[in-house]
Amino acid sequence: MPKISQKGALMPQSPIRKLVPFAEEAYKKGKTVYHLNIGQPDIKTPEIALDAVKINSLDILAYTRSEGSDEYRAKIANYYSKHEIHLVKEDIIVTTGGSEALLFAFGSIMDVDDEVIIPEPFYANYNGFSTASGVNIVPVISKIENNFALPPIDAFEKLITPKTKAILICNPGNPTGYLYTKEEIKKLAEIVIKHDLFLIADEVYREFAYDGITHYSIMQEESLKEHAIMIDSVSKRYSMCGARIGCLVSKNKDVIATALKFAQARLSPPTLAQIASEAALQTPQSYFDEVKTEYVSRRDILIAELEKIEGVKVAKPKGAFYCIVELPIKNSDAFAQWLLEDFDINGETVMVAPAAGFYSTPGVGLNQIRIAYVLNKDSLVKAVNILKEALKVYKD
Amino acid sequence: MPKISQKGALMPQSPIRKLVPFAEEAYKKGKTVYHLNIGQPDIKTPEIALDAVKINSLDILAYTRSEGSDEYRAKIANYYSKHEIHLVKEDIIVTTGGSEALLFAFGSIMDVDDEVIIPEPFYANYNGFSTASGVNIVPVISKIENNFALPPIDAFEKLITPKTKAILICNPGNPTGYLYTKEEIKKLAEIVIKHDLFLIADEVYREFAYDGITHYSIMQEESLKEHAIMIDSVSKRYSMCGARIGCLVSKNKDVIATALKFAQARLSPPTLAQIASEAALQTPQSYFDEVKTEYVSRRDILIAELEKIEGVKVAKPKGAFYCIVELPIKNSDAFAQWLLEDFDINGETVMVAPAAGFYSTPGVGLNQIRIAYVLNKDSLVKAVNILKEALKVYKD
Repeated sequence: MPKISQKGALMPQSPIRKLVPFAEEAYKKGKTVYHLNIGQPDIKTPEIALDAVKINSLDILAYTRSEGSDEYRAKIANYYSKHEIHLVKEDIIVTTGGSEALLFAFGSIMDVDDEVIIPEPFYANYNGFSTASGVNIVPVISKIENNFALPPIDAFEKLITPKTKAILICNPGNPTGYLYTKEEIKKLAEIVIKHDLFLIADEVYREFAYDGITHYSIMQEESLKEHAIMIDSVSKRYSMCGARIGCLVSKNKDVIATALKFAQARLSPPTLAQIASEAALQTPQSYFDEVKTEYVSRRDILIAELEKIEGVKVAKPKGAFYCIVELPIKNSDAFAQWLLEDFDINGETVMVAPAAGFYSTPGVGLNQIRIAYVLNKDSLVKAVNILKEALKVYKD
Repeated sequence: MPKISQKGALMPQSPIRKLVPFAEEAYKKGKTVYHLNIGQPDIKTPEIALDAVKINSLDILAYTRSEGSDEYRAKIANYYSKHEIHLVKEDIIVTTGGSEALLFAFGSIMDVDDEVIIPEPFYANYNGFSTASGVNIVPVISKIENNFALPPIDAFEKLITPKTKAILICNPGNPTGYLYTKEEIKKLAEIVIKHDLFLIADEVYREFAYDGITHYSIMQEESLKEHAIMIDSVSKRYSMCGARIGCLVSKNKDVIATALKFAQARLSPPTLAQIASEAALQTPQSYFDEVKTEYVSRRDILIAELEKIEGVKVAKPKGAFYCIVELPIKNSDAFAQWLLEDFDINGETVMVAPAAGFYSTPGVGLNQIRIAYVLNKDSLVKAVNILKEALKVYKD
């Protein structure tokens, strides 16, 4: 029997995936499970996006251009201009989700065994993309004590080797909710320019910046012109995760020309989803204002309730819709499984994401979980109460 | 300025891409260009597929399961059962087009520098997927003289090394139109079993088998249970190339488990396109019968007209909607460009795909072109006439 590849064997599973059978078992027992574990928002997709698909008049669902249609890319450039990011459509390649944009970025700038430095905890699928691309993630630790702010720049500097090709940040951060300041972005700009590296920023949560703080994009940093590669997606912005439309943005023409070759090999991003995504750009500001208000109030309730629990430490998120929570336990993998298997309050329990999967350094984050506050406030309060009661009786 | 990767530099361009600026120039001059160069059919997408999207009632365009929904996969299994391919839904992973299925297959079974043997000429994007995956294509030549039938099995055997992990075929073939016989598939089965290799078959043109011949799938070959990986797609079958829905099929559980990890990293195939693709499975047989009748009559006219041209040799296709044509010229790259730049009949010219890009061996296929017969019969006749007149005056 022929064997799978070493790469295939090394491909990681999602930190949540191993809990799925336990969740399914819980459903079978009739339990209600509050899902704090996934970034699938309950927010409605803008009607203008859904309607555009319903009234489309295509009679052949044909390929689009590999880089996305000119019209759509021009409109994306216009969207960015409202965020003080000044681009032309030629700086943009439309991709099948932010996922594909990251794969194209990795493939375009890194060879096998090259290294990318990423502050941890980081979005777990970066592990999958790096394994698939044959590149190595070099983690630099950020700490819950200071809300997962940018690690000191000399911590990055110590990790740079001849193999280092890029630094990758997620801003605002999944799973940390941390929003990098303009000063932090400028520090990163300095170091990537000094060492001639790329700076990749996953900015898919751009619109989710709270407390009156304005998101500062790497694309706003003039000095990064040849160094910046931005990853974006419609998934969270318009609550259309299933569209699978994102983009790769760079003013470095070699990067765009190279990413385009990867794009051409897979022919075209999905056509129907591009129709929805192009229409979504007309979503009125009031939609975002409402969504932001909703997330801020969810976050505030979540944090307030969590802080009432003895022994719990929580990093206050300034963006996105995640937070990392430190619990008075030893192993959150076992705890998350126990919650699904052995605990409930009146038939209700919660599913959380153990945080170890968001760290690359072994043994770190074992007592942390990631919470996605994608549920309504009543559910959030109930879910945190379940956590509180569970911690009273849990022994590890 | 940071540099792109070696991999990125090596990523090939599509054989057609370099002609695009010349086509655009031709449009600007007001020329009509008959596109024989691309596999984008002019056949209408089944209404049932388009309508399913128009009447969908989703209010959140959410992720689906990474492997595709249970319902859709069960229905795909049912579709295959009508083609004498007996599967369960667990043997199927829904992908973003056949392209992604191929990438997952390559990643799951091959490491960097591993080798895959492919009869050439082959679908040019296999070059892109192999470069992106870091694996090497080892070509085995098939000949226009015998319609690009399977090369002798000892030609494969000579190329097998410890690095060889798989043989890849496209059946029916793009760009050859060749339909492998049951006997040829059995010969391939023998050799992959003998050498413990995988056999990957890109069967996206399965429904396009002509002259009363039934397509024989590698999944019908019992002995290949652990060896067969089938790549499929809705793109050509339902003329919905822009959906970007395909699948990877294997009865080898390790392959499926591994490909699933690649699928999880990119979260989900596109949701709207899955709705269309699921509905497309209800397309009545009459649709396929009509489409097949149309392609057969296009093929017959195309071949008859081509054979009238002095010095032209053409492989008669038994499937798909491509054929390779040998012309009395030295360099089809230059000829294709000249057709766009310098030739027309009453303002009309043709765009063809130079065939060298479908060969991996340098210098082979230079006097060949690929024609996609995706135009109606009148246009095909006009286009071949343009070729005929062009060949009378072309000097290379």
